[in-house]
Amino acid sequence: RTTYPFSSKPMAQFDPTLHSHRRLNPLTNEHVLVSPHRSRRPWQGQIEQPQPTVLPKYDPACYLCPGNTRAGGHINPIYDHTSIFENDYAAVLPGPGPQPPSSPHPLLTTSPLQGACDVIIFHPRHDLTLARLEIPDILKVIDEWCSVYTKRGNQEDINYVQIFENKGIIMGCSNPHPHGQSWSLSEIPTLPHTELTNLKKYAHTNIPSEFVPKGHQGKACLLCEYVHFEVGVKQDEGRVVVKNDHWVALVPWWAVWPFEILLLPYKRHIESILDLDEAEKSAFADILSKVTKRYDNLFSCSFAYSMGIHQRPTPKPASPESDEINDYAHLHLHFAPPLLRSASIRKFLVGFELMAEPQRDLTAEQAAERLRACSEVHYMDAEST
Amino acid sequence: RTTYPFSSKPMAQFDPTLHSHRRLNPLTNEHVLVSPHRSRRPWQGQIEQPQPTVLPKYDPACYLCPGNTRAGGHINPIYDHTSIFENDYAAVLPGPGPQPPSSPHPLLTTSPLQGACDVIIFHPRHDLTLARLEIPDILKVIDEWCSVYTKRGNQEDINYVQIFENKGIIMGCSNPHPHGQSWSLSEIPTLPHTELTNLKKYAHTNIPSEFVPKGHQGKACLLCEYVHFEVGVKQDEGRVVVKNDHWVALVPWWAVWPFEILLLPYKRHIESILDLDEAEKSAFADILSKVTKRYDNLFSCSFAYSMGIHQRPTPKPASPESDEINDYAHLHLHFAPPLLRSASIRKFLVGFELMAEPQRDLTAEQAAERLRACSEVHYMDAEST
Ligand SMILES: [Zn+2]
Ligand SMILES: [Zn+2]
Repeated sequence: RTTYPFSSKPMAQFDPTLHSHRRLNPLTNEHVLVSPHRSRRPWQGQIEQPQPTVLPKYDPACYLCPGNTRAGGHINPIYDHTSIFENDYAAVLPGPGPQPPSSPHPLLTTSPLQGACDVIIFHPRHDLTLARLEIPDILKVIDEWCSVYTKRGNQEDINYVQIFENKGIIMGCSNPHPHGQSWSLSEIPTLPHTELTNLKKYAHTNIPSEFVPKGHQGKACLLCEYVHFEVGVKQDEGRVVVKNDHWVALVPWWAVWPFEILLLPYKRHIESILDLDEAEKSAFADILSKVTKRYDNLFSCSFAYSMGIHQRPTPKPASPESDEINDYAHLHLHFAPPLLRSASIRKFLVGFELMAEPQRDLTAEQAAERLRACSEVHYMDAEST
Repeated sequence: RTTYPFSSKPMAQFDPTLHSHRRLNPLTNEHVLVSPHRSRRPWQGQIEQPQPTVLPKYDPACYLCPGNTRAGGHINPIYDHTSIFENDYAAVLPGPGPQPPSSPHPLLTTSPLQGACDVIIFHPRHDLTLARLEIPDILKVIDEWCSVYTKRGNQEDINYVQIFENKGIIMGCSNPHPHGQSWSLSEIPTLPHTELTNLKKYAHTNIPSEFVPKGHQGKACLLCEYVHFEVGVKQDEGRVVVKNDHWVALVPWWAVWPFEILLLPYKRHIESILDLDEAEKSAFADILSKVTKRYDNLFSCSFAYSMGIHQRPTPKPASPESDEINDYAHLHLHFAPPLLRSASIRKFLVGFELMAEPQRDLTAEQAAERLRACSEVHYMDAEST
């Protein structure tokens, strides 16, 4: 009785841009439901107000601008490149903390958690973002990430360092001043723990393919294998958005967010940002710039996203015969942007997605194609010339 | 150098309202990071515009109101209670569909997925919600859920029925007309599959406690055990929001959303809504009314949430000695509401939470206390008397 966009009779040919299907994320072992035919439905959801794009270079009310006063009376230094400070409202506090009482029931478990939360300012200019920083300035940000990862990761009570950026008012981030955070914790959090567990499992149950870099102890690395396959796919059919000599940005096969990107080194197995040589570090800055420029150009707006660096939980050295989940890390970054069709239409993870399984309309291949078509000259700089 | 809200020296007493800690969700085996001290930080995030609360009883532009025309030219019947129709933009389509081609690489797997998406209108009145429906009207909604679960769940190619409601503009749901959905699928989606797997695992590795209802084959049921413990906790210290003779609503120990609720029958092990007797069904309608009224009264607004019913994947009968994950279901509903501190401040799952682990400031006990303090007379009805 209901008319569908196309017949429901069996069809000879499976078309990933027409037929609903599921894809498996091997890093998390979770599925995503892909409903490509739904891209055609009229939009009935919320329209967001685009964020204003013309900002002052210095904002006297910004708690991140040089020389300004933060909550609690701290005064920011007059920094030239990056700056770092402990979050005035940290989610976790330094140890040792008190031990939680014994659980009242085995199903109600409490574990203590200590750590430290740092804020990393990317640049003194209030109005810039990674997308508009020069490469040398992005290199300073990478150096700051290396430094916080080294400092926190070597603290005795720290077993995991999560560096991330949360950008955009629609991500709940009210301050446009370019900055990120680093949360250092006494425990490995859920998602990286799951990823590391699956990376280790893959290494123990697969044989490395010929011509593909090897991981820990010469074993197969899930991400080395995956990215080697992706860079070999014919560009206009694949999921690669941009690559340079050492890094590639792609929309993963199992992407949940419409324009989700996985960014990782593909030429060799690299555990952490401390293992990058100079050329790899420059290439990292280069691809960060290219990805964020393409994002901004996609809808001609300052593109909102959450970004996180997944790597070896801390730089603490392992023994050669060590076989911990930490030993199987392959450095990668996730970009999770909520924008769907324009600067003002966002995707919500709600309803079926919260209760059952994430779902997407646009395929990963279609998203990659859209991002490949974007310029690497930022629209705001293009307009001014 | 940074001043914390309190000293970082070891303290003798662990206080769950002061000290950061992690709690484990045994249904998903995932953690949540609890940072109760952060409730004191000033709000810096996005403020949402509250949704208008005065709506017409009939809206000529609403595609769910009786007699109106939907997308594709379908005309809604002049229904008296509930109404159901197939979604004009279904996320999955009826089978059999074409078989996906073989995978180009073991890490890129595609599985076909078929099914049907139904829309369930709760009531003809455009301006009502579950919170403002009379109990007999809520019973009609439950009957409609039973009917779609029976019809779809008995289709040969359907192996899972997900009934859910997504309510509120800030959840991306643009139409306030009271309605929910049901997605019926050829596969069990990620989250319920994980829950069922953990329920089965619990049954196989635990002995049922004395005086607690038993699950499948007399084995221990994780939810029977958990809820039995919770209803026994002294009310003003616990997580129970409201209970009646058969059902209880509580903020689970491991809640991620600020005012998340788990709603379930606690007197006996019940697999699905088809297994409810008349008294249990009436008690279900009663507690749905009480929970949604308390939600609306919390911030005096039409409270936004996603709700999902988790139960036996389909009513297909099992053999007595069957040992599938399906056999371990215990009927329960999740309410995931994004509102945090008022009708206009929402919680976003972003940054660290997307990249590492969900985090909350308010403890589950504090949230339950706030919800216990709410009236069961809807604020709009209280005002009018
Ligand atoms: Zn690798
Ligand atoms: Zn049970």
